[in-house]
Amino acid sequence: MTDTTRLCRTFQTAPAAVPKEDTAKYLASGLDAKGFEAPDWLVPDLEDGTAPEMKAEGLQNVVERVPGAEFPGEIWPRVEWSYEDSTLRETGRGQIGKLVASLGDEIDGVVVPKIGRLEDVERAAAVVAEAEATNGYDDGSIGLSVIVETGRARSDLREIARFGEQSRLTALIFGPVDYTAELGGRDLGDGRPRWDGLLETLSNEASAAGLLAIGGPFDDLFKTRAGLTYYNADEYADQAEHEARLGLDGSWSLYPKQTIQANTVHMPTPEELERDVGRIERFNEAKRAGTGAVTIDGQMVDEATFKNFRNTVTTVRAIHDTRPAQTGEYYDDDLLERALSLELSYAALG
Amino acid sequence: MTDTTRLCRTFQTAPAAVPKEDTAKYLASGLDAKGFEAPDWLVPDLEDGTAPEMKAEGLQNVVERVPGAEFPGEIWPRVEWSYEDSTLRETGRGQIGKLVASLGDEIDGVVVPKIGRLEDVERAAAVVAEAEATNGYDDGSIGLSVIVETGRARSDLREIARFGEQSRLTALIFGPVDYTAELGGRDLGDGRPRWDGLLETLSNEASAAGLLAIGGPFDDLFKTRAGLTYYNADEYADQAEHEARLGLDGSWSLYPKQTIQANTVHMPTPEELERDVGRIERFNEAKRAGTGAVTIDGQMVDEATFKNFRNTVTTVRAIHDTRPAQTGEYYDDDLLERALSLELSYAALG
Amino acid sequence: MTDTTRLCRTFQTAPAAVPKEDTAKYLASGLDAKGFEAPDWLVPDLEDGTAPEMKAEGLQNVVERVPGAEFPGEIWPRVEWSYEDSTLRETGRGQIGKLVASLGDEIDGVVVPKIGRLEDVERAAAVVAEAEATNGYDDGSIGLSVIVETGRARSDLREIARFGEQSRLTALIFGPVDYTAELGGRDLGDGRPRWDGLLETLSNEASAAGLLAIGGPFDDLFKTRAGLTYYNADEYADQAEHEARLGLDGSWSLYPKQTIQANTVHMPTPEELERDVGRIERFNEAKRAGTGAVTIDGQMVDEATFKNFRNTVTTVRAIHDTRPAQTGEYYDDDLLERALSLELSYAALG
Repeated sequence: MTDTTRLCRTFQTAPAAVPKEDTAKYLASGLDAKGFEAPDWLVPDLEDGTAPEMKAEGLQNVVERVPGAEFPGEIWPRVEWSYEDSTLRETGRGQIGKLVASLGDEIDGVVVPKIGRLEDVERAAAVVAEAEATNGYDDGSIGLSVIVETGRARSDLREIARFGEQSRLTALIFGPVDYTAELGGRDLGDGRPRWDGLLETLSNEASAAGLLAIGGPFDDLFKTRAGLTYYNADEYADQAEHEARLGLDGSWSLYPKQTIQANTVHMPTPEELERDVGRIERFNEAKRAGTGAVTIDGQMVDEATFKNFRNTVTTVRAIHDTRPAQTGEYYDDDLLERALSLELSYAALG
Repeated sequence: MTDTTRLCRTFQTAPAAVPKEDTAKYLASGLDAKGFEAPDWLVPDLEDGTAPEMKAEGLQNVVERVPGAEFPGEIWPRVEWSYEDSTLRETGRGQIGKLVASLGDEIDGVVVPKIGRLEDVERAAAVVAEAEATNGYDDGSIGLSVIVETGRARSDLREIARFGEQSRLTALIFGPVDYTAELGGRDLGDGRPRWDGLLETLSNEASAAGLLAIGGPFDDLFKTRAGLTYYNADEYADQAEHEARLGLDGSWSLYPKQTIQANTVHMPTPEELERDVGRIERFNEAKRAGTGAVTIDGQMVDEATFKNFRNTVTTVRAIHDTRPAQTGEYYDDDLLERALSLELSYAALG
Repeated sequence: MTDTTRLCRTFQTAPAAVPKEDTAKYLASGLDAKGFEAPDWLVPDLEDGTAPEMKAEGLQNVVERVPGAEFPGEIWPRVEWSYEDSTLRETGRGQIGKLVASLGDEIDGVVVPKIGRLEDVERAAAVVAEAEATNGYDDGSIGLSVIVETGRARSDLREIARFGEQSRLTALIFGPVDYTAELGGRDLGDGRPRWDGLLETLSNEASAAGLLAIGGPFDDLFKTRAGLTYYNADEYADQAEHEARLGLDGSWSLYPKQTIQANTVHMPTPEELERDVGRIERFNEAKRAGTGAVTIDGQMVDEATFKNFRNTVTTVRAIHDTRPAQTGEYYDDDLLERALSLELSYAALG
């Protein structure tokens, strides 16, 4: 099962180039992050994170730094694009072409921002397909993820997600800043709306189509109170937990401490893992004993119930595959060992 | 008008078989409930409420116990089904066939859980049509209600409801436990999300297509504080009232006291009935007097306004038809008599 | 740019006829309002605001009073209509015919209430087209705005808005009273639901299709506490600000003081205007200096960012065009002068 569990607890963007001596400073530190600071997805950002006059250098940084890195997660560069600007789309097409030509074996896909209606997503998918074919990669080997940040994308969200059932589309990521601006939403002193209706729909459509759903960035990184400036851990946790409750698979990170928090929130807690490992162990015993139907914790276990228990374990296995330092730190050795060795088939012992 | 008002203030599930001496204990007490404990819909549950090894006995219990009962509401057995499991669908087909063959005159329809997209609902409707035809019942005489508890069903909710405009589809019922699991929603200590976006859409689509909309189960039946365990009336009332506010027609009940509460919440209050009966009486007087346009309580009464007043009265009449003990207990004799004898036509006196 | 900014901060309905000595009293005072009491849209109301026996007189009032007035905003009479009542639709057709024949040069369009699914909106649009052609007006010169107040309209909202991309459809206005009644929503002592899911979708679909989105009426005009009755400014401000946050373009007004509040809430604050004028001035300077990419307030300015700054200014210019008394009162002379004289092209200096 593990190989079908796609993880994106953390979608961490890193500017591809910044005006510092080493213009790849943040990109390099993202690629080199360890333990809970290592995101599931690292997103070298050629769009809003990189200044217009540094785009070329940013692209060069990505092409040079990614191959050497031993980053164990997925790499998804964000390119430039806009449903309403054909020049930007042409720029994005060039960036995608260059990335696939130079890094087709290293990257998992590209992230395309400011998509519009379904037709625009199909257009972006065709650009990726073209780059793939030109460079001799198998159809579908380079993924596509999109930022949902326009009224048109939200209007077509169901159709875009259904397109994803049969295509390279992998994740739907919310972009609240551009979205609020496009709708003319106002901050009247208490922040942007949370857009809960959109978040519910994003979670639902991604789930119905087998895609990942990811929340938007939180840029209030620091807080000052009584003369002290400190990392704003509380409010980012509130946002990431709200996203987890609604069934989003991961949160956007702009900063290593946010990555620690998002990785943790979107991972089964030790209590959840203990509970579901125990349930599957008892289920397996009952099946071996041939006692027919099984009731666990007062709940009759049918295939759907079993799937929920199993999801907890396969998620932990998927994290363990790429981030053993995280699972090793977070779970007891004994519990982790039980989770890794468990028989997970509903029917096999039947 | 009364005959077109379909009531489902309470959707009460009762396990078809439980591991007790009388395996039909809960089914029997549901069929025998009196006064405000009697639900509008009794749902003998062959799905999650009955253990896998007792399914056959549960079906037998339903076939044996329903005919003798003098249950005055509607009877809607819930069968097994899943959009993603053809074996379960085959089981459900067998259960539907047996229920229609044995109880075609006693049941009003069947409840099908875990439906997926529109195509799956059409498939379930075809299974009911097949059982109907095989057993010589008129087309449409056996209803179909579905539990909305998957991402796919919520994604296709508008299309499913529109299918209901022209079909045997009768009610859309929310299933929050499976829904939350399927979306990967998490309970981080403060319960499941309430899924308000889904509830609004459920209410809207059901209303637009002339279907009933029903809320999900609440299983925190008891609370313990300061050493005492007591029935959790407050939180269930909060949920049922929230559903009523949003225009849902009824609430799910797992327990006789919940049935009392749901029946009461989804019934016009004595004040609402007094108000609207009074308005219609004044409207009818004005029409008799031939004074042309009518203003009541400062509001001009057009056909749409009148319809709102009339809805209150027709709902009370529909409850009175099947549950005279409830209307008798809840309303003054005099008020009830006025509600039952009122002329309800907007035009008739014109 | 200014000419493409369509304003409707305030959608003020005024009964076309009331049972007073001057039956056009409220209509006349709406047409004559000054300063912040003057709404962007004045809506002479032939529907719920005018008694059935005064409809003919109301229509006559509109035909007589509008031409003489020097109302500087848009005039949009509301006619009678219902998706479920062909007699009312025939009445509405007559009213539209008369309004276009008599006031085709004075009115900007008509407001049609109680629309149903897309087909009903197309039907209303065809009625307007017919009146336009009969009276020799250019296709599209008479607009159509609709009240979204039925389950069917909300179900088809995306399709209705997309129809608006290519048609005379101009604004989508929420009608919460009829909407709540149609869904069977209940006021259990704490008011109607706010229908946040609908408001989010209304804002999104209007934005995606280039239409205006307007909130519903608030009729709790006065409050009594400790023996004093006073205008309920607080709760109306709460509603209008909630609508502004979600990106609605304007609020419904029933009363001159509400018009003052809605005009103000949906207008950039002096701080917003100062901020965005300053940003554009610095952007223009940087472009003149030829320094390439521009960073302002720590944010890289691309075309999308620039558009947000510009929106603030073009909105103020559009208000100034028709309501110089409002902009004159609200902004410093110097700031206003800067806003009016600014170069607003992203590329022109490039």
